[in-house]
Order: sequence, then structure tokens, then C-alpha cells
Amino acid sequence: DIDAAEIRGTRAMLATIQRVYESYGFEPVEQPFIEYTEALGKFLPDQDRPNAGVFSFQDDDDQWLSLRYDLTAPLARYVAENNQGQLPTPYRSYRQGWVFRNEKPGPGRFRQFMQFDADTVGSANPAADAEVCMMAADTMEALGIRTGEYVITVSNRQLIDAFFDVIFVPAEKRLGVLRCIDKWDRLGEEGVTQLLGRGRKDPSGDFMVGVQLSENMIQLIVSFFALQRMFNPYIPAEDANDFEKTYDPKLINGKPHYPSFRGLFITFESQVGHTEKGRAAIDQLKGMADLFIAAGYGPDKIRIDPSVVRGLEYYTGPVFECELLMDTNDEDGNTVRFGSVGGGGRYDDLVARFTGAQVPATGFSIGVSRLYSALKLVGKAQTADTLAPVVVLVMDKERQGDYWRMVQQLRNAEPPIRAEMYVGTAGMKAQMKYADKRGSPLVIIQGGDEKAAGQVQIKDLRLGSQLAANIESREEYASQRLAQVTVAESELVATVQKMLVQ
Amino acid sequence: DIDAAEIRGTRAMLATIQRVYESYGFEPVEQPFIEYTEALGKFLPDQDRPNAGVFSFQDDDDQWLSLRYDLTAPLARYVAENNQGQLPTPYRSYRQGWVFRNEKPGPGRFRQFMQFDADTVGSANPAADAEVCMMAADTMEALGIRTGEYVITVSNRQLIDAFFDVIFVPAEKRLGVLRCIDKWDRLGEEGVTQLLGRGRKDPSGDFMVGVQLSENMIQLIVSFFALQRMFNPYIPAEDANDFEKTYDPKLINGKPHYPSFRGLFITFESQVGHTEKGRAAIDQLKGMADLFIAAGYGPDKIRIDPSVVRGLEYYTGPVFECELLMDTNDEDGNTVRFGSVGGGGRYDDLVARFTGAQVPATGFSIGVSRLYSALKLVGKAQTADTLAPVVVLVMDKERQGDYWRMVQQLRNAEPPIRAEMYVGTAGMKAQMKYADKRGSPLVIIQGGDEKAAGQVQIKDLRLGSQLAANIESREEYASQRLAQVTVAESELVATVQKMLVQ
Repeated sequence: DIDAAEIRGTRAMLATIQRVYESYGFEPVEQPFIEYTEALGKFLPDQDRPNAGVFSFQDDDDQWLSLRYDLTAPLARYVAENNQGQLPTPYRSYRQGWVFRNEKPGPGRFRQFMQFDADTVGSANPAADAEVCMMAADTMEALGIRTGEYVITVSNRQLIDAFFDVIFVPAEKRLGVLRCIDKWDRLGEEGVTQLLGRGRKDPSGDFMVGVQLSENMIQLIVSFFALQRMFNPYIPAEDANDFEKTYDPKLINGKPHYPSFRGLFITFESQVGHTEKGRAAIDQLKGMADLFIAAGYGPDKIRIDPSVVRGLEYYTGPVFECELLMDTNDEDGNTVRFGSVGGGGRYDDLVARFTGAQVPATGFSIGVSRLYSALKLVGKAQTADTLAPVVVLVMDKERQGDYWRMVQQLRNAEPPIRAEMYVGTAGMKAQMKYADKRGSPLVIIQGGDEKAAGQVQIKDLRLGSQLAANIESREEYASQRLAQVTVAESELVATVQKMLVQ
Repeated sequence: DIDAAEIRGTRAMLATIQRVYESYGFEPVEQPFIEYTEALGKFLPDQDRPNAGVFSFQDDDDQWLSLRYDLTAPLARYVAENNQGQLPTPYRSYRQGWVFRNEKPGPGRFRQFMQFDADTVGSANPAADAEVCMMAADTMEALGIRTGEYVITVSNRQLIDAFFDVIFVPAEKRLGVLRCIDKWDRLGEEGVTQLLGRGRKDPSGDFMVGVQLSENMIQLIVSFFALQRMFNPYIPAEDANDFEKTYDPKLINGKPHYPSFRGLFITFESQVGHTEKGRAAIDQLKGMADLFIAAGYGPDKIRIDPSVVRGLEYYTGPVFECELLMDTNDEDGNTVRFGSVGGGGRYDDLVARFTGAQVPATGFSIGVSRLYSALKLVGKAQTADTLAPVVVLVMDKERQGDYWRMVQQLRNAEPPIRAEMYVGTAGMKAQMKYADKRGSPLVIIQGGDEKAAGQVQIKDLRLGSQLAANIESREEYASQRLAQVTVAESELVATVQKMLVQ
């Protein structure tokens, strides 16, 4: 169940994301919640339980249907169906939607959650990958998450694959290795080392079987990724170009160094530049980095980091992750980095499952409720922009028509005032309690006496409770009467307007 | 699959409905898509297939789960869980959401569709029923559907029940009778008569078994509802009060008559006023009508019509329907009235299934895609307020950084201009075709010559295609060059702004 504050906050957040994606020229499109199970395929989030993790059921014709587990597989089905010239090429689209996982719910793990995706289908140009990364960075800034509070990290599956080729990791073990590396943040180097070998007992006592690599290979892998993670993308002042020098330098060994993508590429070249896959990966990453530099997105916004691997099997080239750097507390109260709120990558083979022909594609997906949690954490979630309504009390059941007309007057004011007549059946005391619970700023009261005098009473509940909290003497108590005024019926709207502004 | 125009149009429509519901002081709340099957209960839309019509499946713990088939049953579960003082009483809330039916899809029948509901839980006051009806009327007007193009029809299940008591319709047949009456618009008096008796063969040849009532009882029922349907809510001028006289009179037998709810009540009194249920129903309807009259909603906006029965079993008192009166074509090309876009009623027993204690409740539900179809039909759907983006072509792959900076300038303009760089890999001709397919107003071109001169070319695709359509001579063809200008790079944003306004 989602309450009013979260619905309003999420609505405002989604509108901001939409505005950024629209400004980039992406078009909205939505697919249904239910797809034929075979259309979703076996690209499931949890490889250990093939075909599990998804809610599936049969319709009256015994056709197997599944609830979508992400928005990418249904988009691939949609593009495959409409790829005979109905769609522009490349086809750039965005969508928001609920997705479902058949998993045990837990903290931060839901069976139902919302994703917000943008995808470019039909382009192998690294500019398409770079575009979604920059759009993700712009989205964070538009939401009020500043440079330095987030970073988009970029890697490439082929780069890792080339490294695995060089050190002879067996093909069938590779996905398992990537899933281990993906857990680095949570488990640390020691935990990852255990998982790459025999396995690991987690704090609850459950034993997770490892990838069963040799000691020697584990050492190579761990040192490769540890090195990359530690790798410093700063280069000495004498090597930096004008763009790089627009950034603040950092003192390393007492000398100024500037952030730069270029340092990394020297390492990549030496490690895998001589292999075909490595060459392709480096060219793709360079294509992206060139655009980042031209557009003014430095390593403070977008960073190349090979340890980003993304768990999903369908990525074929560049992969990206949007990480929030602010601290938060985990379930045990420890301070941890907030971490990923979204990610994506290139998935050139997904559409081919339907049509046979390969269609290059890349995309980025935001976890909506995680991002909303992050906004709340940094105080940037919009929640309080809707004032609770003014409540007109029903003092005389026979005169509901009169009270209703007061509400209409308020709603028809310019600008309109949010207002309601009490539609329950309880007495005055319960009605006041109701208005209080609603957080109403004002209540309107017209009993028999006021009616006879052509007047209405307006009570300011905010002022009343403020005063009540500060009462220290009898004299002050008397001033509580300030919290209510009696005016002519004809002054109702003008007085309410004035009191709401106060 | 839902395309960009429908997503944008629906988004604008939902924002308008939200605005009206918020102004009435209703608060948003949302429930999940999946509920425990037993929580949804047996209030299924199709009585002929108990427990069918719903998508159900088991999770890893073998718990039965179901996709919600409406938004009311999950709300009842939510209120039951939070009814210990967490929610104000009455609790007035609204929500939009997708619901699912396990039925054979057909024209206008989807397995997945969106509803927009508003409900007041915890009040037995007819003012709560009247409120949602008036809110529905206001919503239609806010969407541009004018008085006379829609009508909210109101009835009461108890009124019908009292009539059934009076003529001795067996209890177990009553729901079946109501379902038949509900089909009156589609099948006419003859079809309904057949369905109340032995049954009816539809045009496709399928035979639907009837309710099996006696000839005598069928005659009583059909004449009751036919009479109500024909009943004229107009009263003679000498009986009309001031409010009723604010309406245009209608000549009946040459004498002016004014629309009025009061005429109906005289009939109700004589038919069922002497029974306990009839008395209660008349009092409820009168309570609603009094508020309609006080608030200025006459029979042109809200009409009391006993033939409105609503199919769902859980309604216990007042029921309402929002009908659109404009004509449309059915599947066979016949002109028919557009019909219902939403409805609701009082469901006092639904929360009691969880807590045992009866909680009075009433609500109104809009069928979002049906309403959107209606808006399209009357030309009130907002679809065209998003301009397609300006496309910057990539003439030289090495200079993508330059092109990207042009796009950034356009996006950062005030107001921002929707713009994109072509991120595919194709040549100039394919890029122009792409921009055309996107419906782009302008493309920006900078080849080597323009770059050397510090210039950019801006092509107006709208003007170009307009001219192309009108070309009649060579001279005119030459004027097509008007559709493109070359300006200094520094003039890019200002020129694009000027051309977009044209």
C-alpha cells in the first residue's frame, strides 16, 4: 500500500524524469503487464532458478502467460513486431511501469516495484550508449541530486570477456564470476574471493556454493578488479588538456593531478588491446568518452569503472550504473553508501530472439522507489505541496445544501481552494477531530445563531494547535481566540484566502 | 501496446481528473496489483463462473495470489487493516490503477484496463453518495464534455429489492434479473423479455439460458422498468419551484413543464413507500436529490433512473452510472449511444468480510480507456501538445561532440527546445528520412563547408512538405529554398526559436 505523500512525491519525481527524457526527444510507449511466457524467454534475473522468479499462470485456452519481470523484454517483443518500417530507426523511447518478481519479499526486495526505462533500439553507435548515460546524469541534477552526490559508472562486458580470454576463465563459469564481482560492494574482497572458490557461509549460517575456480585464477581475477576499483583516473598536470584543467586538481604525491578518462585507456590497451574483443571494447568506450568530454561530463559525473558488471545475462557490450554516493544506514544500523538507483547497458541480441535478425539496442533503467528513497534521504522529495482541504462542518443536518454551497464557493475561487463538506454522520466534536486528523488548516462553522446573523465562523486549526503548545499562562490562553474569526457570509471566500496565505 | 499519443492524452486526462478529485479533498492512496486470493473474495464480475475471470497463481510458499480485478476489493482490505484510528472517518480517497480480467479479449473487452476510483468509507450519509455523483459530473465538465453530452444516472438497489418483494420475485433469481435489466440498452425490451424467461439466441447462434421466470412475473418486471425508463421527470409549471424554473421548460400537451426530481418520488411512494426497504431507499434517494438541487445539479446533469442496476453483487444501496449521450458506431457500423464510462454505488458489506463489523462505504469508478475514447470522439483529447524534437544531423562522425553541443544549446534555451542528435549509424539520406518519420519540425545541418564558414543550415521540414504538396510549376519549386536558411553558429538558438514560432 502506498500513501498520499509517497504518491504525490513519486508523481512529481516521475514528471521531472519525463521532462528530461522528453527534452532529449525520447517518446513514451508502454507495453502490457502480461506477456506470453515464451516471449519473455529465459533472460531471468536469477540464473540459479531458471524459469523461476517470475509469476506465471494459464488463461482459459491453457496458454502460459507471465507477469513482466522488467520492461526490456516486452520492449524487445514490441520492436520485433513493429520493425517493418512502422518505427523510426533508431527508435528512442521511454516508459514507466510496474514489474513483478516471484521472490521472497524482504527489506528493499519487493515482489512489485516500478521501473523507469529509456532505450535506443537500432543503433550500434556508442553515441547512443553515451546519450543514455548523460541523460541519467542530467536526470539526477534535475531532481536536485548534485554533482558529487551521484556518479554514473560505465564499463563494458567485452572488456571483461577479453580479460577472461587472456587468463583462460572457462566460458561456463563467466556469468558466475560476474555475479560475484557484482557483490563486491556488499561482501568485500574476502567474501568475493570465497564465492569465486568453494563458497561462502553468510552471517545467517546459509552456505552459498561458489564458482569453484582454482586459487591461481581467483588471485588473477581479484587483483584485476581490485586494481581497477582502486585505479585513479587522475593524471599529472603536465599531461592534462584544457578540458581536464577546468576541474579542480587533486594533490597526489604533492603534485597537482587532474581527472581524466585517458589514464584508464592506457591500462586497457596494455591488458587486452591486443585481442579482438578487447580492441572492440576499447573503441566503444573511447567513443563514449569522447562524447562525454565534448559535452562537458567529466569523471565527477560519469566514470569508467570495469568493476561494474550488472547481473543480467542479456548485456552484450557497454554496461552502466547510476550510484548515489551519500551515506545511509543498512538494516543493522551500519553506515553504508546508498548505492545503485539504476543501470543498464547494451543488449544487441534481445530483439533477435523474435526476428532472427540482430538489432543493436541499449538502454537505462531507474528503480523508481529506490530513487524516491534517495530523494527523501537528501530532503529533495516533493511531498508537502498539497495543502489539506478546508472542512465545512455540518451543524444542522437539514442544512447540508447551505454547507455544500459554501464548499462550492471555495472551490470556485480563483485560485481554487481545496475544500470539503463533512459527509459523515457524527456530531461536532467528532467533526473537529476529523478535521484535525486530516491536517486541515481551517474549518468553517455555521450554527443556528450564526445563520440567523448571516455570519460564518472560521477556525484556524494550525494557529490553535501552535498556541496550545505554547500556553504558559491564563493571559496567553485568552489570546487563543485569535485563532477564530466571525465574518459575514459574503466575506467567506476573501477571509479564507487571507487566512490561508498567513 | 500503447503509443505516444495515447500515453500523452491519457496523462493529461488523468491530471484533470486528479485536479477535480483533489479539489474535493480526496487523498490519493494505492494498493498493490497482487492480493491473496482469499482477500479478493467471491465478488467476481461474472457470477456464472464463480472464482473464474481472475488471474490466479501460487508463490514459492504455495500461497494462492490473484491479480486484482477491480480497485474496490483491495481498498476494502486496506481499510480493514488500517481502521484502528490510523485513517480519518469518513476516509475519502482516490486511486488510478490497472486491473485484470481473465476473459477472452474482444472489441472493447481487454484483459488489462485502467480504472480511476474515488471512495468514501465510513459514512452512511447519502451526502457521501451525492458527493461522488457531483464530482463525476464536475469531472466530465472539466474534461470538456458539456452538460447534455453526459448524464449521471442514479438508482437504488433497495428500491428494486422492495419492488421485487412486492411482486414476490424469488431471492435466488434477483441478481439474474438485474443482470438482464442491465442489458436493456443493448438488447432492447424484447431481448430482455427473452432472457428473463427461457433464454435467448444471440446473432452468432449461441444460446444463453434465461432466468426462467413465469410469464406473469416477466410482464410485471418489464412494465415496471419500461415505465421508469419512459418516465418523464418534468412537472407542470404551476407545481415548479424557483430552482426548477431556472431550467428551460419543455412543452408537454402544449403546456410548459419543468424538469424535477420530485415527480419521480410520487411514483416511488405509491409503489414501495409502504415497505421498510422501499422507505429506506426513498429516504436515501431524497437525501441525495436534496443536495443535487441545493448545489444546482438538475436532471440535465444528474438523473434518477431505476433502470440503472449495475452488475456487481456487492452493491447494497444507491448505484450510479455515468453515461455519455453522444452517438458513435458499433462494430457493425450502426449508430449507437456511446454509453457508460463509469459507475459505482454503495457497498456497505465489503469491509465487514475482513473485520466482521459493518463499515458503510460508497464509491465511483471511471473506465479510463473508455473515457479516453469518448474524449477522442468529441475532439477533446489532448494529444498534440508535444512538438517532435529538432534533429541535429551527424555529417561527420568525428565531430559528434560539436553536434552534441548544438543539441545542448537548444535544450538549455529558455524555454527549452526539444532536440536530439541523430545517434544511429546511417548516412545523410537515411537521417533526413528519420527526421521526417519523427515528424521533426526542423533539422540542423553542418557539413565541412558550413563548419569552415562558422555557419549552420536549418531546414524547415514542415514548410518543405507543405510546399512539395503545392508545387505546380518550376518557379514555385525554386521557392522551396525558402524552407531552409543558413546562419552563423552563434545565431542557431535564436533562429530555431523564431522558426518554431512561425
